[in-house]
Amino acid sequence: MSPAIKDNSSLDKLRRIESSRLFQGVVISIIILSALTIGAKTYELPPLAEQALSLMDWGITVFFLIEILFRFAACPTKKRFFMDGWNVFDTLVVIGSLIPLDNSDAVLLGRLLRVFRVLRLVSVVPELRFLINSLLKAIPRMGYIALLMFIIFYIYAAMGALFFASVDEELWGDVAIAMLTLFRVATFEDWTDVMYATMEPFPLSWIYFLTFIFLTAFVFLNMMIGAILEVMSEEQNAAQAKQAHDERDEITRQLAAVQEQLRDLTKQISEQSSRR
Amino acid sequence: MSPAIKDNSSLDKLRRIESSRLFQGVVISIIILSALTIGAKTYELPPLAEQALSLMDWGITVFFLIEILFRFAACPTKKRFFMDGWNVFDTLVVIGSLIPLDNSDAVLLGRLLRVFRVLRLVSVVPELRFLINSLLKAIPRMGYIALLMFIIFYIYAAMGALFFASVDEELWGDVAIAMLTLFRVATFEDWTDVMYATMEPFPLSWIYFLTFIFLTAFVFLNMMIGAILEVMSEEQNAAQAKQAHDERDEITRQLAAVQEQLRDLTKQISEQSSRR
Amino acid sequence: MSPAIKDNSSLDKLRRIESSRLFQGVVISIIILSALTIGAKTYELPPLAEQALSLMDWGITVFFLIEILFRFAACPTKKRFFMDGWNVFDTLVVIGSLIPLDNSDAVLLGRLLRVFRVLRLVSVVPELRFLINSLLKAIPRMGYIALLMFIIFYIYAAMGALFFASVDEELWGDVAIAMLTLFRVATFEDWTDVMYATMEPFPLSWIYFLTFIFLTAFVFLNMMIGAILEVMSEEQNAAQAKQAHDERDEITRQLAAVQEQLRDLTKQISEQSSRR
Amino acid sequence: MSPAIKDNSSLDKLRRIESSRLFQGVVISIIILSALTIGAKTYELPPLAEQALSLMDWGITVFFLIEILFRFAACPTKKRFFMDGWNVFDTLVVIGSLIPLDNSDAVLLGRLLRVFRVLRLVSVVPELRFLINSLLKAIPRMGYIALLMFIIFYIYAAMGALFFASVDEELWGDVAIAMLTLFRVATFEDWTDVMYATMEPFPLSWIYFLTFIFLTAFVFLNMMIGAILEVMSEEQNAAQAKQAHDERDEITRQLAAVQEQLRDLTKQISEQSSRR
Repeated sequence: MSPAIKDNSSLDKLRRIESSRLFQGVVISIIILSALTIGAKTYELPPLAEQALSLMDWGITVFFLIEILFRFAACPTKKRFFMDGWNVFDTLVVIGSLIPLDNSDAVLLGRLLRVFRVLRLVSVVPELRFLINSLLKAIPRMGYIALLMFIIFYIYAAMGALFFASVDEELWGDVAIAMLTLFRVATFEDWTDVMYATMEPFPLSWIYFLTFIFLTAFVFLNMMIGAILEVMSEEQNAAQAKQAHDERDEITRQLAAVQEQLRDLTKQISEQSSRR
Repeated sequence: MSPAIKDNSSLDKLRRIESSRLFQGVVISIIILSALTIGAKTYELPPLAEQALSLMDWGITVFFLIEILFRFAACPTKKRFFMDGWNVFDTLVVIGSLIPLDNSDAVLLGRLLRVFRVLRLVSVVPELRFLINSLLKAIPRMGYIALLMFIIFYIYAAMGALFFASVDEELWGDVAIAMLTLFRVATFEDWTDVMYATMEPFPLSWIYFLTFIFLTAFVFLNMMIGAILEVMSEEQNAAQAKQAHDERDEITRQLAAVQEQLRDLTKQISEQSSRR
Repeated sequence: MSPAIKDNSSLDKLRRIESSRLFQGVVISIIILSALTIGAKTYELPPLAEQALSLMDWGITVFFLIEILFRFAACPTKKRFFMDGWNVFDTLVVIGSLIPLDNSDAVLLGRLLRVFRVLRLVSVVPELRFLINSLLKAIPRMGYIALLMFIIFYIYAAMGALFFASVDEELWGDVAIAMLTLFRVATFEDWTDVMYATMEPFPLSWIYFLTFIFLTAFVFLNMMIGAILEVMSEEQNAAQAKQAHDERDEITRQLAAVQEQLRDLTKQISEQSSRR
Repeated sequence: MSPAIKDNSSLDKLRRIESSRLFQGVVISIIILSALTIGAKTYELPPLAEQALSLMDWGITVFFLIEILFRFAACPTKKRFFMDGWNVFDTLVVIGSLIPLDNSDAVLLGRLLRVFRVLRLVSVVPELRFLINSLLKAIPRMGYIALLMFIIFYIYAAMGALFFASVDEELWGDVAIAMLTLFRVATFEDWTDVMYATMEPFPLSWIYFLTFIFLTAFVFLNMMIGAILEVMSEEQNAAQAKQAHDERDEITRQLAAVQEQLRDLTKQISEQSSRR
């Protein structure tokens, strides 16, 4: 047996282990344990528990490192491994956890990286991966609507900063703050307080707020309706095409049989006539 | 007549009574009365009315006990009775009402159990039962979306507890409290107050809140669209399959007649030719 | 010419006037004027304007009285006139405006009746009438869902009044007040204030609020989805039935022609064979 | 070569430049720069930066003037240029920017006009133009619903101003203020505060608020469902008509072939019979 074949068979073994239910289950359990560890750290804990958590954290980091090396080893073409976005994400999270951090700011960064470990659940459970992919597909559909929304927000924010900056510096100080205030208005969060304050010097400012609310609500609503219809018509076209095909198939098959019968009949008659 | 048959006929009688409109009406009336009693008890009442309510409460408990025993007696196979979730629920509520309660805590528990009697309305009115069943069927469809939502909430809550715990212990103290705060943000309930407070030490924390709101709103929206489409395509497939069948049926029947005619014709011609 | 026929022809004339664009336009203008009068009265006005409004109000009342008498006269069968709900509504509003009112309470009632005159716009514009009718048709569809919602609200309100009455008498005093508070929670209106107050004595009360919000939102969402689907499948069935019919019609017509041709052919052949 | 032809060829050249990717890109960049300039002016800036912005502003105005003249020159029929609403809008914005403004009020107006320059992005990017057109098409569909909503608001506002003006002059003072308050209630913005205030003198006023909320929510919901269904059925009809046609086409073609075969057969037989 050549070493290449031997290598190949060990690769197969690795892959069989990787895709086994047991392996998947262990990985998911460790990720959930990691999530719980992160959650537990937000509580005030006795020193002993803190130490236990630190130990567990190192154990999880090591496990993730081994797991990612294992998956890399099990991957038949090494280049492809890093072409999958999820693998890159996993690797970055694991490498990030390995960097030793001393000063307090870096500790926050380290803990932040550990928080993203929870996202590994998405990369491991296929159903969640599928869900995320279908959500990502929905983004471009909303691209131009988002741009239009941004233009509406920007224009209203520029107007707001122009007129209302003197009313409340904290809400209308500049165009960025005004956009945040308008987002608040769009979520109906205490928007009347904002309006009543501007209505004292500018009694007609309710026009500004009402047109803004109607405009954003109208655009948002039409975006939603559009999204529903787009996805729906896609699915429907596929379904109808299939159905139409099935239906036609049955009938055309029968019609072909009729034509066959007629051809036989014609042949028979012409034979009759020639025989005579 | 054997006792078994006699038993059977009395069972039939019981069942006929059980499914009669009068019996159903009386049960529904008593359940509504029971609901009103529970409501009345939340008001401050004169002692006489209190006593009357207690008496009525006992009367209702006894009626429910008799009713459940009656329904149990009317059930042909006793084992099946407890395989229906609604029957188990009814029995538990009735048994719970029978337990004598003395100390104040248990009184609350007893009253709580009586509150659930109102739910018996759902178990008795078939339309509501149907509605609940169709709602229950909608739950698994939302399973993975709910998991994804939980992961988003958990990650943001862990980040929130990590960074903002020093800002407001009551809102970001630990990961559980932070999740509650984030749910509040997701419902747009005074979310700007929460944001403005965190923006003082962390001026860029608006990114945290805006990405969270966009993410949850986006996932929620797509979930809703998905739910509409899924139910719709199910119904549509059924409708189209039926329609396609009906349509094809008519045409294929006609085509079969054509083929029959052709076969007859062919036979006739060949008979002609053989006759000659 | 007999008086009956003469009567008839004058009835026709009345009806022609009633359905003329001019008449409709005048009535709609007067209703809008009446609405403006009602609105104007809510402002502080100089005595002269008040008197002018009172005069105008009497003018409008008289016009409406004449209009309703006219429409009654134009109606061919007098019984039918009062079988149309809109006519009864119009008549009541007009009669209500005629009653002389002196004391201050009755003045409010009289003004309230005048407010309802605005609704006459709906009864006069056919498009609005159609819209209202289609909205009324949508109500029964939501009947059992509304009942289910009410049961959920009632059970949670009974529980709330049971446990939280001691926390805030004004929010949870009795089952009716608790239902109002829960409706407030369902609209996300300062619901966290309500929750935080109850979480002090009952730290686990967030379960009560979160389950309530999820339950109502879930039922509401499914109700909406159900409503969309129901209306849609109705329309679709109608459309598909029509389409299927059109489609089949064309094909079956052709097939019938084929069968006719075959019948002719068979006849021809049998004639041939009999001729020989 | 005649001057007319020469003119024409230069027109072609202009048009080719106008529709070139480079020209479009430059225009879009300048519009975005203009938007950033407007945004930058809302910040407190050092005098030097202010001067730079003013210069840039003049540069942009000049560029826009040249661009619009260029596009006017490139337009083959000059009358048509002003029949396109977007061109008129662009021209007005550019002319508005040219008017010299001195006193402080006019400065605000001038800056407001500059804000609208951002909207030129919509007129330049074809996808946004298409989006706006499709949104505009959705407006008439909602006409009568909007009228109905207005009537509901007006009636409730008139009632509110009638009864609650004494409770809070600032919320219910007259019919216009009351409509604004009701819009606030419809957005669930601190609506319970408004209700609790009116419930003190009028304990039954919760009926007013709940019926208003249910009515507006119900009408709004049905409007949304209606909008979804209308757009959907339009698209579906188009799709089904096309599909039905395709399907039928195939089958009728086959049936026509069958009829042709039969005709041939009949002819053949009659020839046979005539030959004999």
